[in-house]
Amino acid sequence: MVSSAQAAAASSQPLLSSVAVSVQVHCNFQPFPTFSAIIFFKPSFEEAQAIEKEEMLMERPASLLREGEDLQWDNPSTSSMRARFETMIRKAQDDICAAVEDVDGIKFREDSWIRPGGGGGISRVLQDGNVWEKAGVNVSVVYGTMPPEAYRAATGGGSDNKPAANKAGRIPFFAAGISSVMHPKNPFAPTVHFNYRYFETDSPPDVAGAPKAWWFGGGTDLTPSYIFDEDVAHFHQVQKQACDKHDLAFYPKFKQWCDDYFLIKHRGERRGLGGIFFDDLNDRDGEKLLAFSTECANSVIPAYIPLIKKRKDMPFSPEHKDWQQLRRGRYVEFNLVYDRGTTFGLKTGGRIESILMSLPLTARWEYDHQPEAGTEEWKLLDACRNPKEWAPVS
Amino acid sequence: MVSSAQAAAASSQPLLSSVAVSVQVHCNFQPFPTFSAIIFFKPSFEEAQAIEKEEMLMERPASLLREGEDLQWDNPSTSSMRARFETMIRKAQDDICAAVEDVDGIKFREDSWIRPGGGGGISRVLQDGNVWEKAGVNVSVVYGTMPPEAYRAATGGGSDNKPAANKAGRIPFFAAGISSVMHPKNPFAPTVHFNYRYFETDSPPDVAGAPKAWWFGGGTDLTPSYIFDEDVAHFHQVQKQACDKHDLAFYPKFKQWCDDYFLIKHRGERRGLGGIFFDDLNDRDGEKLLAFSTECANSVIPAYIPLIKKRKDMPFSPEHKDWQQLRRGRYVEFNLVYDRGTTFGLKTGGRIESILMSLPLTARWEYDHQPEAGTEEWKLLDACRNPKEWAPVS
Repeated sequence: MVSSAQAAAASSQPLLSSVAVSVQVHCNFQPFPTFSAIIFFKPSFEEAQAIEKEEMLMERPASLLREGEDLQWDNPSTSSMRARFETMIRKAQDDICAAVEDVDGIKFREDSWIRPGGGGGISRVLQDGNVWEKAGVNVSVVYGTMPPEAYRAATGGGSDNKPAANKAGRIPFFAAGISSVMHPKNPFAPTVHFNYRYFETDSPPDVAGAPKAWWFGGGTDLTPSYIFDEDVAHFHQVQKQACDKHDLAFYPKFKQWCDDYFLIKHRGERRGLGGIFFDDLNDRDGEKLLAFSTECANSVIPAYIPLIKKRKDMPFSPEHKDWQQLRRGRYVEFNLVYDRGTTFGLKTGGRIESILMSLPLTARWEYDHQPEAGTEEWKLLDACRNPKEWAPVS
Repeated sequence: MVSSAQAAAASSQPLLSSVAVSVQVHCNFQPFPTFSAIIFFKPSFEEAQAIEKEEMLMERPASLLREGEDLQWDNPSTSSMRARFETMIRKAQDDICAAVEDVDGIKFREDSWIRPGGGGGISRVLQDGNVWEKAGVNVSVVYGTMPPEAYRAATGGGSDNKPAANKAGRIPFFAAGISSVMHPKNPFAPTVHFNYRYFETDSPPDVAGAPKAWWFGGGTDLTPSYIFDEDVAHFHQVQKQACDKHDLAFYPKFKQWCDDYFLIKHRGERRGLGGIFFDDLNDRDGEKLLAFSTECANSVIPAYIPLIKKRKDMPFSPEHKDWQQLRRGRYVEFNLVYDRGTTFGLKTGGRIESILMSLPLTARWEYDHQPEAGTEEWKLLDACRNPKEWAPVS
């Protein structure tokens, strides 16, 4: 039983880096034709201060959901979407960490926590490994409340439920996600980031017939310091295959969305070479979108691990390493200045170490560094400025 | 002659890192008793896109002011505050760079630029020197326009000029500042940051009798990785002496303001060990505040250079260097997430290389790093969490 005070205290909790609650709006200005404005619930300073402190656990819990919401093991298919999504991301965390440990030889450290009002997380971090400088894979579950305007926007903002939702006050929501960034040591081995999330509101309790809102979001993207065309093409091809099994329109749309989202606006360049990114997805049956999210999460290993195996032992010079470090600086700029989950999480009292796990172990900023035209460094920069089609739609 | 289109294009231009146009408001919540809310003119995306691109120059201009506004050399004391402030910060840039070059042995590189609608800047950067990893000293002049609400807030927001100012439309403003960050190599040698700025609006052209708004802002603060009590006390003592010559109330007030401003909220710790910080200062004659700002700028060398001379050649271990790099990571977090000048500058199209000059050459993020209680690293962290009185008021 969760008291209303607890529920209020749980409001505005962040869900890992890169997980944010958003609704899509139409914006006409360029260059963000698919820009998805975030309803960040604008927590006031007092609310942010009121967020529950996490309680660290000695070992990971069987479920991060509130009691009674977790999976019915005797009949999983009848369980709630909340439970099935948690089950999916927990399995993805296990599988991906196992694949990474297998290549690296070093084991992840694990930290688990819960919050008194429900929800919690499991962070796994591998630092200073043989292959990876820093790799983290987090799962997290958040119970919070949102203002009625955010609920209205999420459910279409129709005038029908406007006055009613205003009366209803804050709406409880649930969010769950997996989020990961892996930075290898070798400058020829690329960084990968992925994140899959599910969001659901309650029905406003005192509005007869008002619907639940829910949606899926996520993406997987690649950030190399040097381009090997065949590696980037392989990575995009795996994303495309995963998308194509579910909808031929997905890959072109989500590839573009990814190029738009990861723009470091003040540089006019992307953080990396993209992949897929989607949000607010609720245009078809939830079962189909769970299957799609599962497919995407399962595609991380085949998309990424082969590139690491090919590049992890390539010889490199101090100059190659310096360029990697400059690109890591750009990664930091994107994550701290633009990434919605990071900036939201930092401002609302999330578990800082889990949110900032996405930052590289080391980074570098040189004044006015400009790679000479035609060099390998310039080619990378050019591809970040002018996104290419890596898996052309035939 | 500047057309209205040019003036509009120059709107919302940032003035270096750490320079932002602000007005003080009363906030009752802790821990920001003197929190100064910024009227950032909320530039829309379109406006930000419209900002003029800087034009690089082959050599620095005699003045960054619009023609006719620069100093009357035959009678400086009758020149405008704009001209005298530019003269002050240009001289401070020369003096401080000369003192740094004298210790380092390496010369600053200089880049100058102007914008077609007026204003410009001079960046000086010393990278990979003998003593400093990266040191930058910028001066900058901005001509922009602000929305009438910002003007009203700046001039007290009285109801008398409210309707008139609404009619008046955007108000032209002028801002000039010097901004500097210097990161030494030796982990026992501290980083310093300082910034002094002057802001002035025009009178709304179609509002009879409406006043100009103007104010001074600035500060100098120290960020060591290791504490030497006598060094920090010396640094604060010099700030206090500069303040005390002008107003005995300044140091205690501006020391507290500095501790409040440089809080990394998500960590609950300050970036460093403070110094002084003030903004919106217009409570006495402009001449007196120009004299105070000049005193502060002239105090940078005696406050900082002696500490560098003492610490630049101290032997250190790789562990000391790692801790310095972690603290540099915190510096990056503050500057990219919270610093008003940086975040504003990045979002409104300032000269990126000058804005991000404040970032260290290299930085580090370790997952969940916790110094052992009682160690030198812990002592620094403790002083960042619990600010001390380094120059007690007797």
